[in-house]
Amino acid sequence: MIPRYSREKMAAIWAPESKFRIWFEIEAHACDAQAELGVIPKEAAKAVWERGAFEVERIDAIEAEVKHDVIAFLTNLAEHVGPEARFVHQGMTSSDVLDTCLAVQLVRAADILIEDVDQLLAAIERRAFEYKDTPTVGRSHGIHAEPVTFGLKLAGYHAEFQRARERLLIARKEIATCAISGAVGTFANIDPRVEEHVAKALGLEPEPVSTQVIPRDRHAMFFAVLGVVASSVERLATEIRHLQRTEVREAEEFFSEKQKGSSAMPHKRNPVLTENLTGLARLVRMTVVPAMENVALWHERDISHSSVERMIGPDATVTLDFALARLTGVVEKLIVYPENMQANLDKLGGLIHSQRVMLALTQKGVSREDAYRLVQRNAMPVWLEGKDFRALLGADKEVTAALSPAELDALFDLGYHTKHVDTVFRRVFGRA
Amino acid sequence: MIPRYSREKMAAIWAPESKFRIWFEIEAHACDAQAELGVIPKEAAKAVWERGAFEVERIDAIEAEVKHDVIAFLTNLAEHVGPEARFVHQGMTSSDVLDTCLAVQLVRAADILIEDVDQLLAAIERRAFEYKDTPTVGRSHGIHAEPVTFGLKLAGYHAEFQRARERLLIARKEIATCAISGAVGTFANIDPRVEEHVAKALGLEPEPVSTQVIPRDRHAMFFAVLGVVASSVERLATEIRHLQRTEVREAEEFFSEKQKGSSAMPHKRNPVLTENLTGLARLVRMTVVPAMENVALWHERDISHSSVERMIGPDATVTLDFALARLTGVVEKLIVYPENMQANLDKLGGLIHSQRVMLALTQKGVSREDAYRLVQRNAMPVWLEGKDFRALLGADKEVTAALSPAELDALFDLGYHTKHVDTVFRRVFGRA
Amino acid sequence: MIPRYSREKMAAIWAPESKFRIWFEIEAHACDAQAELGVIPKEAAKAVWERGAFEVERIDAIEAEVKHDVIAFLTNLAEHVGPEARFVHQGMTSSDVLDTCLAVQLVRAADILIEDVDQLLAAIERRAFEYKDTPTVGRSHGIHAEPVTFGLKLAGYHAEFQRARERLLIARKEIATCAISGAVGTFANIDPRVEEHVAKALGLEPEPVSTQVIPRDRHAMFFAVLGVVASSVERLATEIRHLQRTEVREAEEFFSEKQKGSSAMPHKRNPVLTENLTGLARLVRMTVVPAMENVALWHERDISHSSVERMIGPDATVTLDFALARLTGVVEKLIVYPENMQANLDKLGGLIHSQRVMLALTQKGVSREDAYRLVQRNAMPVWLEGKDFRALLGADKEVTAALSPAELDALFDLGYHTKHVDTVFRRVFGRA
Amino acid sequence: MIPRYSREKMAAIWAPESKFRIWFEIEAHACDAQAELGVIPKEAAKAVWERGAFEVERIDAIEAEVKHDVIAFLTNLAEHVGPEARFVHQGMTSSDVLDTCLAVQLVRAADILIEDVDQLLAAIERRAFEYKDTPTVGRSHGIHAEPVTFGLKLAGYHAEFQRARERLLIARKEIATCAISGAVGTFANIDPRVEEHVAKALGLEPEPVSTQVIPRDRHAMFFAVLGVVASSVERLATEIRHLQRTEVREAEEFFSEKQKGSSAMPHKRNPVLTENLTGLARLVRMTVVPAMENVALWHERDISHSSVERMIGPDATVTLDFALARLTGVVEKLIVYPENMQANLDKLGGLIHSQRVMLALTQKGVSREDAYRLVQRNAMPVWLEGKDFRALLGADKEVTAALSPAELDALFDLGYHTKHVDTVFRRVFGRA
Repeated sequence: MIPRYSREKMAAIWAPESKFRIWFEIEAHACDAQAELGVIPKEAAKAVWERGAFEVERIDAIEAEVKHDVIAFLTNLAEHVGPEARFVHQGMTSSDVLDTCLAVQLVRAADILIEDVDQLLAAIERRAFEYKDTPTVGRSHGIHAEPVTFGLKLAGYHAEFQRARERLLIARKEIATCAISGAVGTFANIDPRVEEHVAKALGLEPEPVSTQVIPRDRHAMFFAVLGVVASSVERLATEIRHLQRTEVREAEEFFSEKQKGSSAMPHKRNPVLTENLTGLARLVRMTVVPAMENVALWHERDISHSSVERMIGPDATVTLDFALARLTGVVEKLIVYPENMQANLDKLGGLIHSQRVMLALTQKGVSREDAYRLVQRNAMPVWLEGKDFRALLGADKEVTAALSPAELDALFDLGYHTKHVDTVFRRVFGRA
Repeated sequence: MIPRYSREKMAAIWAPESKFRIWFEIEAHACDAQAELGVIPKEAAKAVWERGAFEVERIDAIEAEVKHDVIAFLTNLAEHVGPEARFVHQGMTSSDVLDTCLAVQLVRAADILIEDVDQLLAAIERRAFEYKDTPTVGRSHGIHAEPVTFGLKLAGYHAEFQRARERLLIARKEIATCAISGAVGTFANIDPRVEEHVAKALGLEPEPVSTQVIPRDRHAMFFAVLGVVASSVERLATEIRHLQRTEVREAEEFFSEKQKGSSAMPHKRNPVLTENLTGLARLVRMTVVPAMENVALWHERDISHSSVERMIGPDATVTLDFALARLTGVVEKLIVYPENMQANLDKLGGLIHSQRVMLALTQKGVSREDAYRLVQRNAMPVWLEGKDFRALLGADKEVTAALSPAELDALFDLGYHTKHVDTVFRRVFGRA
Repeated sequence: MIPRYSREKMAAIWAPESKFRIWFEIEAHACDAQAELGVIPKEAAKAVWERGAFEVERIDAIEAEVKHDVIAFLTNLAEHVGPEARFVHQGMTSSDVLDTCLAVQLVRAADILIEDVDQLLAAIERRAFEYKDTPTVGRSHGIHAEPVTFGLKLAGYHAEFQRARERLLIARKEIATCAISGAVGTFANIDPRVEEHVAKALGLEPEPVSTQVIPRDRHAMFFAVLGVVASSVERLATEIRHLQRTEVREAEEFFSEKQKGSSAMPHKRNPVLTENLTGLARLVRMTVVPAMENVALWHERDISHSSVERMIGPDATVTLDFALARLTGVVEKLIVYPENMQANLDKLGGLIHSQRVMLALTQKGVSREDAYRLVQRNAMPVWLEGKDFRALLGADKEVTAALSPAELDALFDLGYHTKHVDTVFRRVFGRA
Repeated sequence: MIPRYSREKMAAIWAPESKFRIWFEIEAHACDAQAELGVIPKEAAKAVWERGAFEVERIDAIEAEVKHDVIAFLTNLAEHVGPEARFVHQGMTSSDVLDTCLAVQLVRAADILIEDVDQLLAAIERRAFEYKDTPTVGRSHGIHAEPVTFGLKLAGYHAEFQRARERLLIARKEIATCAISGAVGTFANIDPRVEEHVAKALGLEPEPVSTQVIPRDRHAMFFAVLGVVASSVERLATEIRHLQRTEVREAEEFFSEKQKGSSAMPHKRNPVLTENLTGLARLVRMTVVPAMENVALWHERDISHSSVERMIGPDATVTLDFALARLTGVVEKLIVYPENMQANLDKLGGLIHSQRVMLALTQKGVSREDAYRLVQRNAMPVWLEGKDFRALLGADKEVTAALSPAELDALFDLGYHTKHVDTVFRRVFGRA
């Protein structure tokens, strides 16, 4: 997590202030439950809520001495709460606080990421309808294939980010659990009802069975989902990078009037945002394997996962949040060049209609093999000598024996390819 | 995928025979739909089902010539179907067949993996109840912490594999889609209703919007889930490896009478199965990142994903299937040594009760800080000089000032720690 | 390792036949040394060499019974050698044979990979000199930057694969060690001189200190190098994929006359080989992390690494061998289109000379800031309105105030950019 | 990179101050060369060195405006240098500065890491000689195998970190190159001799052929090496974690008198440092794959690598530096318990001598198969019933028929296993 690729709201989740505030709430809610159960006095619970406070610097100072963050926090808290502080944290273990706090942080992070995706979806939808009927060439292998529309391309990304949204909901649910179960998860010194109360108060589910910690397969799943979502970011970013290539130039990242694409070359307009997104995707993705390596903790827990999570918790969520927001901006302001799309469609003298010509020949009784051969022999000179496909076909007697000039012309109709755009739009957006 | 780590049923999914059979079904179902729509004669569809057949060797021979697997298959199919074969595959593209086939294969693989997990869950549940009340030491950091029961340990793994099951269901749903949408996903030459028909016939959903291919974020998610499940396998395997260590020896993989643990050292009994599972987990996990790298295909598709999937599709599913089955066998036949568990519990003269002694002291009015100090000063000689914790406490005047011998004795009761085992069992198994 | 992406020579290294042959040689050489030391009779060593033989099927049959591959091998060997066989393997442990064999296999694999790189280097060098002076546009961010030559591009790849070669030599050296040190590496039952003898006979170095196994940091380094080399394969493959894009078309994979680019679209010519190489690179790269996870074996060894190596040993070497050979073929037969390179260079009316115009203006006393502004304001209409850069400059009074038409023309000279090609060639190839 | 796991010296390399200082030196050295070549006035070069200065805050302020870090730096520099500043950076491109700076930073990082390893080697060597002859059990699969010495264990780690050192030297050499070659690496606007001069001044080699950037296979190799070294850290850390397990307790991380192992359990002494190292290893290792994904930049460069390197450059080097230093501290202060080692050796009644007994039996004419069977049948009751191995052997008539009591006793001699410790020490340390 570096400021350059951070947004405030997500970064704030990981600030010490937020963390200690969550710790406080966990302890205070636990006191409520303990008081309700008669384990501690009700006044104690009340005192915690009323007088409870902390200062990050003070906690740091204490920690420097006692070398234990939770103890440092509790000490500072006690300075505010007074003697009733001795009822705080009773029967709990540090991990009860740490793991439940991490759950709250990851839930909040997930909520922001879901909002991010919602905004991205809105942007893609708007642009998709804007270019719903704008013809552009579909490419496989980077080579012209057949016509699509630019809106159709965007519809595909919309569907992908709808899936991203669902996955984030699943990821959120995976890590939304609370453990207040003591040193080895037996509730030896604390009633399970305390866990239930704290869970409910924080919008979490009680972890059915914890050891000293919440099991890390949950976190592995969470980061795995982030890695998949980042890969989807990369796909759309890569599409735009391709569209902006000098020779293609069908779309372009917004370029402000005062912007400088290169210090040395004043003519440059570079897709730097989407290139950056490609790199950010790698950064999110790299957190997946360590999160999986964290699962096999020894026995009831070892602490090897902790340093990993201190790093990848903020890194993956902050980076993905930044990436989603940046991508939304790119989509919203994307400059689209329908005329260049048309020019590219026209580039090969109609080669993109080769399949349709072949099918038409077969419908006229030419065998599939012969039809393929006929079309291919007229297609290759377009590539190799820059000839016009339609013209070549018109001059090929075997072709014209089967297809009249008018029939041939009709085969070069773009509308043929876009007739089901509405169907697809209805599938994706529920409307067309 | 190597035979050593393969089971027949899962490997069969990836055999050429299975693949071509699925291809046949896709084509035949598509013919049904085309016939229903009046695009091809009904007799043609009927002929495909009735006379359709293929031979793997023949397809291989044709492919060696035409260098295209789908064309080779169709040619061989035509040899059986006869002239009506010209209506097969009409308006479809190779990827329609390939991607839908992969979906069917991954769905079947998921079904086997879910069955595997079910069997593992059954084995864990049986052993968990068997040792529900068997005391054993809970460890954090590899160091004795507090008592748990062996059944409680197993309950934790049961809960984890319940989650694995749910994740596999999600993974299954992710990839259970069908695309019959033509060269760039526009349905230019084939009606969307064909896709709907084939999807239904094969137990899949129509892909809302495909390009030339089914989008690869779905597959990335699938392999990510496999990676998480493999990590859970590793966790249980690691637990058993630890329990079998010579000095711990609380449990042991089954060792048959004729088995040789080592060619050189006749005394050896090694946890080789669970060590092997640790390695297999790495193999499944390594497929996650390439599956994510596959997502950002160029434009409407490039074929970089194909070689990756040819390898990781079989590798990850076959290896995980093998691992789950092996783990089930290990759990079923695990030799458990309750007496060694008890001996280990007793090893440190009751040090595992240190927290409870500390809490008792605080309840008697000793400040938390002093209580900690008192307990720690009696605990350290146990480590360093092998003394007995209970005896030391009994000889510490500050301790005995607060706690009577009887009170002290009561604090060394294992039952105190296991009183909520039923609660946890009910959470995990729905019964206790 | 799947046949589709395998070459015979590399695959043969991993065949059971090869493995057992190496095992035999290790045992036989060890017998020589033991005989020399007087530990076993000289006739025994001689008998092993003279009568030693094995049959893969027989070994498999024995292994099915005894469940131990080394014992099965020794049993089969004994069937041929006779009573002297009891002197074979004395004081050794299975890992002595297995690990030394793996070293021999990886060394041989490295040798093939080095040969592969040599052939690739030769191909790149030939094509680099062929197109040493062929102007083409250099691109950053996929956007035209300034002119280079196609030979210069290739020189860069040559330098990269020279580094790949050096890295493979390092990798080879890393794993070229022999361990014959017994059950825990103490030489308790075998003299260190046996290890030295076997090492020398097999072209290996003695492992300075082994445990039961050769330490796995060596193997981790080996696979890491393969991952880097695969990434270099990906870079060149990606370059070619880009050059073949329909709109760019500066180079193209060889396309045979009878080839079919697509079953559906007869006009297609796709860069399928380089796309495939991109996928293969992912497959090689995915082996790096598990190889690193293999390093931290427990104590003197656990067997978790074994399953991993059974898979990634063949997979990574066979796949990389195949990829390097395929890439060599692609480079050798690459179709290059200098005229398209020139057309692309000309595409933007000389925009690629923007830096030079800016520098010229500053040399005429215009401030850097003003020069940038002047050039940029004439560059942007080229992008946005398709105007001619040279013409716009000629019509801009602030520009013509500083630069005469002749001076401007001189700035559009490609030769200016290629004057140091010889320097670079000499650096890379030692000749120009 | 988070402060918790950072050391000052390494973190300083990545501070803005350091970066800009390196930028300054690159520019100033380039001016020297340009002046020498007569391209710019000698006074200008002199002025840069004499008056050159910068302020981080000022650069940040300018960058906020111009959105370009190199331009911001040059502007701030010009404010100090005055009019001669217009000669700075002439003919260079931003990447010339950025990439050469990164090379300098990584070289410095490598130097620190090499120092770290040297200190670790010294610590291991000291402890290895301290415990050179201390018997301890060697374990395979976590199960007692045969005796080794604790010094021998440490010698193995020493050899591994010697290799780590060599690898770091190779990594250092890989990235120690300088590129001053202009926008697309053609030296169009700058003489190659400038690059040579700057390289030499900074202790780098000229990059034989750069594009706009230094090729990223170099960086991939660098991070791959860091990943391997981190994996070696993990191996030693894992060893110590195992040795400290309650039931094993052969060694222990230093535990200060005031330390608290757990807030809840006053008796705890946990190997938290080595557990932490296990986590840190994962963090270093996760940077390897993205560094490899960075290699295949598009054409002469895209900027996807930049965000990745901004993160992993500091993260991997700072984390590994911290880990190596922490590991050195752990080794230096490791508490070793020779008496526990002996107790563990004795635990199984001499089972660790099973191989030797078997070999002795074969030397007495018992067939290998029978010897194995005899030893195994006496070994298994030790495991299963806790019997004494030596006693069982003495009571087995088939055994005593071949071996006298005195012969049997002699086989239980630890010295037999340690007789080659000196040999190994000489191999590793050059002395014994």
